[in-house]
Amino acid sequence: MRLLGIDPGLRICGYAVIDADILGEKLIEAGTFRADPKLELAMRLDQIATDIDNILSSYEPDMMAVEELYSHYAHPKTAILMGHARGTIFQRAAAANVPVKGFSATRIKKSITGNGRATKQQMQRSIQTLLGLAEMPEPADVADAISIALCCANTLKIETDTITDIRKSKF
Amino acid sequence: MRLLGIDPGLRICGYAVIDADILGEKLIEAGTFRADPKLELAMRLDQIATDIDNILSSYEPDMMAVEELYSHYAHPKTAILMGHARGTIFQRAAAANVPVKGFSATRIKKSITGNGRATKQQMQRSIQTLLGLAEMPEPADVADAISIALCCANTLKIETDTITDIRKSKF
Repeated sequence: MRLLGIDPGLRICGYAVIDADILGEKLIEAGTFRADPKLELAMRLDQIATDIDNILSSYEPDMMAVEELYSHYAHPKTAILMGHARGTIFQRAAAANVPVKGFSATRIKKSITGNGRATKQQMQRSIQTLLGLAEMPEPADVADAISIALCCANTLKIETDTITDIRKSKF
Repeated sequence: MRLLGIDPGLRICGYAVIDADILGEKLIEAGTFRADPKLELAMRLDQIATDIDNILSSYEPDMMAVEELYSHYAHPKTAILMGHARGTIFQRAAAANVPVKGFSATRIKKSITGNGRATKQQMQRSIQTLLGLAEMPEPADVADAISIALCCANTLKIETDTITDIRKSKF
């Protein structure tokens, strides 16, 4: 199963493509895409749409994973602008028939490190180990996108195991 | 010049199409479009995108006008979700090469009633008079969309007058 993790932002978006199967997870591609801050908001969102469209058509993921919204933000206006980018990315995924799954920050951290309050550095180190990467994933947006994709893979694995268990118990 | 006013929301969006020329403004069409609240966020945004795409292609506006973001919101999480719808609408406008112009709430109110702190009812009554409508525009989302389009028309008129004045003074 191919999963696309996205860390949405109006200035910079992180993305990560991983392949997940019964043997584990493999990083296919990760990076960032940026919208020109000199452009007007609508044009920036259109750049983001073009980039996400390209990623969706190049890697044909089975699912897109993103972090859920918090209840509180230190900078609500920045969060509303991030919402514009997030909304654009969600809509382009829906237009490409790619389902979107959301995970809370705590769940993502717990899924990667075993600790729901892990630091950014702890997260990066765990990702490096889990995927056998030569270097720490950078910048933070890429690390975040990878961790969201990995959390999605772990969740699907648990769900599949549960389904298998239910099936077993029937026969 | 054809102007499209939009009052964006995740649950309900208001829209208004007006034709504006030197003689005044004429309401061509106004209404609301709704996204099914039972659907997942990405699917709701895709419904909004389909509706705005239809409006853009049916009425071919020269410009889209929306209210600018406030600095403070009573319900930040609702505002972030509204940002998702607003972002989707902005991106679809950019994809259709329709420029987007933003106006502050105060400017819109002042432009329609002469008072930057006008009430909803005062706004509705002014719109009714300005456009010679038999009834008050309802619901509030439609009235808001009309007022944004009218504010945009007034602003463009002032800008055009200024340009004409500058030209006159040259010769």
